[in-house]
Amino acid sequence: MDQDTLRYSTDTPLARRVVAMRSSAVRDLLRDAQRPGMLSLAGGLPAADQFDVEGIGFAFAQAMREAPRQALQYGATDGQPSLRESLAALMAQRGAAVEPADVVVTAGSQQALDLLARALVDPGDRVALERPSYLAALQAFALSGARFVTVPADADGACVERLVADTGPAPKFVYLVTNFANPTGATLSLERRRALIGWALRRRVVLVEDDPYGELRVEGVAHPPLVALARETPGAEHWCAYVSTLSKVMSPGLRIGFAVLPRWLRDAVVRVKQALDLHTGTLAQEVADRYLRSGRLAQRLPQLRATYGARRDALCDALGARFGAALRFGRPEGGMFVWARFTDGTDASALLPAARDEGTIFVPGAAFYDHAPDPSALRLSFATLDPGQLAEAAERLARAHRRLRAGNPTAAAGLEAGAAARH
Amino acid sequence: MDQDTLRYSTDTPLARRVVAMRSSAVRDLLRDAQRPGMLSLAGGLPAADQFDVEGIGFAFAQAMREAPRQALQYGATDGQPSLRESLAALMAQRGAAVEPADVVVTAGSQQALDLLARALVDPGDRVALERPSYLAALQAFALSGARFVTVPADADGACVERLVADTGPAPKFVYLVTNFANPTGATLSLERRRALIGWALRRRVVLVEDDPYGELRVEGVAHPPLVALARETPGAEHWCAYVSTLSKVMSPGLRIGFAVLPRWLRDAVVRVKQALDLHTGTLAQEVADRYLRSGRLAQRLPQLRATYGARRDALCDALGARFGAALRFGRPEGGMFVWARFTDGTDASALLPAARDEGTIFVPGAAFYDHAPDPSALRLSFATLDPGQLAEAAERLARAHRRLRAGNPTAAAGLEAGAAARH
Repeated sequence: MDQDTLRYSTDTPLARRVVAMRSSAVRDLLRDAQRPGMLSLAGGLPAADQFDVEGIGFAFAQAMREAPRQALQYGATDGQPSLRESLAALMAQRGAAVEPADVVVTAGSQQALDLLARALVDPGDRVALERPSYLAALQAFALSGARFVTVPADADGACVERLVADTGPAPKFVYLVTNFANPTGATLSLERRRALIGWALRRRVVLVEDDPYGELRVEGVAHPPLVALARETPGAEHWCAYVSTLSKVMSPGLRIGFAVLPRWLRDAVVRVKQALDLHTGTLAQEVADRYLRSGRLAQRLPQLRATYGARRDALCDALGARFGAALRFGRPEGGMFVWARFTDGTDASALLPAARDEGTIFVPGAAFYDHAPDPSALRLSFATLDPGQLAEAAERLARAHRRLRAGNPTAAAGLEAGAAARH
Repeated sequence: MDQDTLRYSTDTPLARRVVAMRSSAVRDLLRDAQRPGMLSLAGGLPAADQFDVEGIGFAFAQAMREAPRQALQYGATDGQPSLRESLAALMAQRGAAVEPADVVVTAGSQQALDLLARALVDPGDRVALERPSYLAALQAFALSGARFVTVPADADGACVERLVADTGPAPKFVYLVTNFANPTGATLSLERRRALIGWALRRRVVLVEDDPYGELRVEGVAHPPLVALARETPGAEHWCAYVSTLSKVMSPGLRIGFAVLPRWLRDAVVRVKQALDLHTGTLAQEVADRYLRSGRLAQRLPQLRATYGARRDALCDALGARFGAALRFGRPEGGMFVWARFTDGTDASALLPAARDEGTIFVPGAAFYDHAPDPSALRLSFATLDPGQLAEAAERLARAHRRLRAGNPTAAAGLEAGAAARH
């Protein structure tokens, strides 16, 4: 039997849950993003031109000078003690008083989601999500055999009242991106946060709050994380798990995420992590810890927010000018994404090939639904392009839209033929 | 309900497979290893005094000079292309011609084991192992719901003929540490490697070859990895997965492992990894790649082997002198571990507290069995102590042994009381 036969055969001994997996639409689009001249609105990447290369270099040099053999050796499964202290201090700035012992360092926040699913989900267990939701979270939860229960989201985030009103079996956990959600850009209101906490305590449901973007607030006032609000209600903090990452504010390439967990769940997550990868990279943790202690992150955040704010405005202004009433979207108070819907019957998945020909890409909204996708929706990231490029990307998108509406989706003058083959 | 009640209650909503997990005995011993004055034979840590701090520092500086924004940004799920090239070149040195496209970079070899289990194992599937076997592999496989089928191991590694003779249902995969196994120190013979390959092809069983220690050969001649031998038999390479790591020869703190996989399995593993952690740390990969390309690893290996060889001999010589016929063990041709058995009825688990009081620790052999442990066995690592310390550790172990045999297991002059409380 040759390799190709085996590769595409259903006769390979793969696990059933893996046969059913498809590759992430978002990550597949990353290949297109590398075509020369492409202006990508598709990725969830932070702006590389904002990385503090110098500051991270200093932190590395310091780690290798002060404790090289510790930084290069195996470490504790829950993370380096000093970094857990720094992350507890970061949580205090976000309004939550937590102990370093409550913190588990993970390989990005993605691994925290997998760890929580593995610690909590037996095959067939229910997990509640807002609809649409972060694609890679769905994939991680599905790998543990979760079944999804979804509630719609509006401008104030997930419609928590639907969860509260539901009289069916309680889900094992609820997963929510509470600030500038991926993909919708919406922030969960304070009222809904409080309603969620009371309900979780009554129904014994774990609240998994994913907050990768909270620091990227451009305007408006931040609400406290659920783990902080839960202190108002005795017992409620035992049901609150908080997940975040240094990927959006420092560097995704370090793969430093973290979870703040109630003790019963923390112990289980650490046991699972031990079997998964022993621990997160020691050197990356020592670098991240020294960087956080240097104070440079705090110094740089205002500039980072201003940069993202200008980019958000450039994209939103250009979309408004190019599309008018044909495209409806909210201006998010922060984060990286604009969630938009065509009001003229345009199918976003059909628009994508035409947009690619014009030299821009985005993620069709359908990628963020486990079922019943909204074909009119699309997610546009403003994080990686500068304001001039964002205006040009919106212009290209508008050209593709006009061509598609005119029934002529092939570009007259798109990217040169064959460009994709180089990547 | 207060935190402690919840923590120890069976009423928490943990997944069933997690409730059943216990923390790794080896990692729990790491706490004891940090007591002042303790001479630990317990850990699987490489010798920190052998880390190439200078060379790794150079590689970091080079990565941050040449491509800082790439090193700090998100990367491809299967790994940085340049590192995959370097790892393919490493495989060529080990006798296996593989393409960079066959290589997947993982968070240490531990994650490769989890990825393979998740890609292959449906709950209840059989996985075959040698007995005793690497504890953390068992934990990773159990998390995916594997049931274990075991065969004994002798001085030539796993008794493959038992697998071949078995007429029951074939396992999903076989897991073997082929060189200087953990814990037995045994190396799988060439005859058994060939028998395994023919059987795997006939029975359609994936062979998972874990090779963290192969480069640490002190004497004797290396056998080719299964993935190389499989080329002799058409079709057999589609059933060979090879897993290794830079942890034992470069640095465990970077968490850079890798898997060489047949294409059908590679694609599934990459899809799973995408959901688990998106990708392994970009910066660590860029550092590892530049370090491998610098040639310093190859230059340093002879010295590393000489160091480990001297340590192996110091431990084996001291054990022979102190215990005589009461302790039987083989002198492994490389790696980090001596596997020993008491012939005088001593129970290794009972010896451990007495040894700890004397100021040395080891791992009782029982930790490496999924069932029917051999109570007389213990694993002794010679990697982290120098020859003088190893002789002293053997002396302490002999004192504990004499006291235990005399029915007086409490130390007269052990470590000072309260030392453990500091850690």
